[in-house]
Amino acid sequence: MPLAVDARENRTKPRASFDRLTALLETDLVRVNKLILSRMQSPVALIPQLAGHIIAAGGKRLRPMLTLATSRMCGYRGERHVGLAAAVEFIHTATLLHDDVVDASDLRRGLATANAVWGNKSSVLVGDFLFSRAFELMVEDGSLAVLDILSKASAVIAEGEVLQLITSNDVETTEATYLEVINAKTAQLFAAASRIGAVLAGCSADEEGALEAFGRNLGIAFQLVDDMLDYSAREAELGKTVGDDFRDGKITLPVVLALQAADDRELRFWRRTLEQSEQREGDLPHAIELMRRHGTLGATLERARQYGDAARRALAPFCDGPERQALDEVIDFCLERGY
Amino acid sequence: MPLAVDARENRTKPRASFDRLTALLETDLVRVNKLILSRMQSPVALIPQLAGHIIAAGGKRLRPMLTLATSRMCGYRGERHVGLAAAVEFIHTATLLHDDVVDASDLRRGLATANAVWGNKSSVLVGDFLFSRAFELMVEDGSLAVLDILSKASAVIAEGEVLQLITSNDVETTEATYLEVINAKTAQLFAAASRIGAVLAGCSADEEGALEAFGRNLGIAFQLVDDMLDYSAREAELGKTVGDDFRDGKITLPVVLALQAADDRELRFWRRTLEQSEQREGDLPHAIELMRRHGTLGATLERARQYGDAARRALAPFCDGPERQALDEVIDFCLERGY
Repeated sequence: MPLAVDARENRTKPRASFDRLTALLETDLVRVNKLILSRMQSPVALIPQLAGHIIAAGGKRLRPMLTLATSRMCGYRGERHVGLAAAVEFIHTATLLHDDVVDASDLRRGLATANAVWGNKSSVLVGDFLFSRAFELMVEDGSLAVLDILSKASAVIAEGEVLQLITSNDVETTEATYLEVINAKTAQLFAAASRIGAVLAGCSADEEGALEAFGRNLGIAFQLVDDMLDYSAREAELGKTVGDDFRDGKITLPVVLALQAADDRELRFWRRTLEQSEQREGDLPHAIELMRRHGTLGATLERARQYGDAARRALAPFCDGPERQALDEVIDFCLERGY
Repeated sequence: MPLAVDARENRTKPRASFDRLTALLETDLVRVNKLILSRMQSPVALIPQLAGHIIAAGGKRLRPMLTLATSRMCGYRGERHVGLAAAVEFIHTATLLHDDVVDASDLRRGLATANAVWGNKSSVLVGDFLFSRAFELMVEDGSLAVLDILSKASAVIAEGEVLQLITSNDVETTEATYLEVINAKTAQLFAAASRIGAVLAGCSADEEGALEAFGRNLGIAFQLVDDMLDYSAREAELGKTVGDDFRDGKITLPVVLALQAADDRELRFWRRTLEQSEQREGDLPHAIELMRRHGTLGATLERARQYGDAARRALAPFCDGPERQALDEVIDFCLERGY
C-alpha cells in the first residue's frame, strides 16, 4: 500500500505561473479578447449577458493561448491565429455552459455558475450559440484542415462527457475508463488547440503530431490535478467548491485508486456514498481521510507528473526560444496547482 | 372583431401528402437514412441509443428532403446532397434534443421524449454530439459556402430559441417579436436546407435567393400551423400533447391575437395563466374558447396560407418538373395539417 502523501508539503521552488506566456502573447491576447467580446454579441441581450458572465469570469484563456503560442513557436507570423484562438475559447465556453447543466455544481471559478443565475435552459441555448459562433470563425478562416480537427474534437468531447455521465455512481469504473473520459472531455481540446498552431505554420505531419501529443499529455495532466484538487484544495484557491465531484458521484482517479485499496468496510462506505448517493455530514472528510490513508491523492499527482513529463518531451524537438520556454512553464503551472 | 373560424371545417379537397416527394426521392432517402444511422454510432452506447430514439421516432425528414429536392430540381446529379441532407437532419435533431430541455414537453411525435427517458444531461450532450457530427459531414463535403450557410443558421437558431425563452410568460410580446422567433428558430433551417440545393447545383445568386425565400416562407407557414395545432389538434393526430405551449407559457400567434382582442376580464385570465403561470383545470379549454371567439386560430391559419403562397411564388421561376410539383405539394401538406 503506498504511503500517504500530503501533496501540499512538496513545494520546493517558487510557484510557476502563466506570467511569461501572458507577457509574450500580450498583444495577441488583447486581440483575442476583443474578438471574443465582439463575436458574443447578439441583438438578443441575454446572450452577451450570460456569455459575458462565463467568458469574463477570470478564465485563464489557457486553451487559446496554446494555439497562439504553438503557432508562434513554429514560426507563424500571420493574423489567423487570433480568430482560431477565439474559436477554441468559444468551444471551451460552450462546453462549460453545457457542463453546468450536467454538474449542477454551485461554484465555478469562485462565481455562481451561469446556470444558477439564469437556469438550465439559457445555459444550453447560449452554449449552442457560442458553439455555432466558433464554427463561424473557423469558416471565416477558411481552413478545412482546422475545421476537420475542431469538428472531430467537438464530437469526441461530447462522447467523453456522455461517458463520464454513464460512469457516474459506478464504483466498478476502471482506471482505463477514467482515462478515456478525461482524454476525451479535456485533453482532446488541448490537443486540437496545440495542433492547430502547427497547421497554421504549415509544419510537417511529424510536428503536427508532436504538438498534438504535447497538448494531449498536458490536458490529461491538467485534469488529473483538477480531480485531485477537488478533494484537497482550499476553496478560495481553487475557486470552486471542494467535494463537488464527491457529491456528484463522479468516479475520478483518487476514488478509483481508493476503491482498489479499500477493505470491506471502506467498500461499503464508497458504495453508500457514491453508488447509492446516500451522503451524510462527515462523509466528505471521511472520503478525504481514506484517500490520504491510501495515498491516492499523491498517486494521482504522480500520474499527472508523468503526463507532464511526456508533454515536455513532446516539446523538446522544437526550437528553444521564448515560446517553448513559456509552454514549459505552463506545464509546471498545471502541475504545481496540485502542490 | 373577426368571426370565429373552425379550421377543421375547411377541408375541400383530398389531403395533400409527402407521398409524391418521398417516392421521387426514395433512393436518396434510403441513402440519407443509412448515413444518419452510421454517423450516429459511437463506442459510447448511450449515444446511438438516445439518438436513435429521436431520429427513428417517425421523423418526416422534411428538412433533408428540401436539400435533396431543391438540388435535383436545379439539375444537380452528383452525390454530395446525401451527406449534406444528413447534416441538416443532425442539426435539426440536436435542436430537438436541446429543445426538450427547454420545453419539458411530455410527448413529441407520440413517444416519450428522450429527455423523459434519459434525463436532461444526456439530451444536452447527445445533442452536442450530433451537432458536431453535422459539422464533420459538412467538412467532409468540403464546401465553405455550405459551411458558411449552416454555421450561420445554427447561430440564428440558437438566438431564436433564446428569444423564445425570454418572451415566454411575457404577455406584452408583439406579433413582430413572435415572427422574429419563428423566423429564427424554425424558418432559418428550412431556408438553409433549401438554399444548399442551389449551392450544390452551382445556381446563380438569384436562384439561391429564391430557394432561400421558398424555404423561409415554408418554414414560417409550418411553424404557424404548428402553433395553431397546439390549441386545436386531436392529440393522436398531432402526436404531441395539445396545450403544451399554454402550459409552458409560450406566447404564440394565437395567444398574441387573443391578447389584442381581449377585454379586461380576458386580459386578467391571460395574465394569470400565462404571465403568472397559475393554471387550473378548465383553463386550457377556456383559452381555446377565447381563441375561437376571437377567431385567432383561423387568423393564424390565414397568415400561414399567405406565407405558403409566398413560398409557392418563390418556386415559380424554376423549371416545372416532378421536383417542383412535389415541393408544391409539401407546401399544401404543411398548410393542410391545419385543416
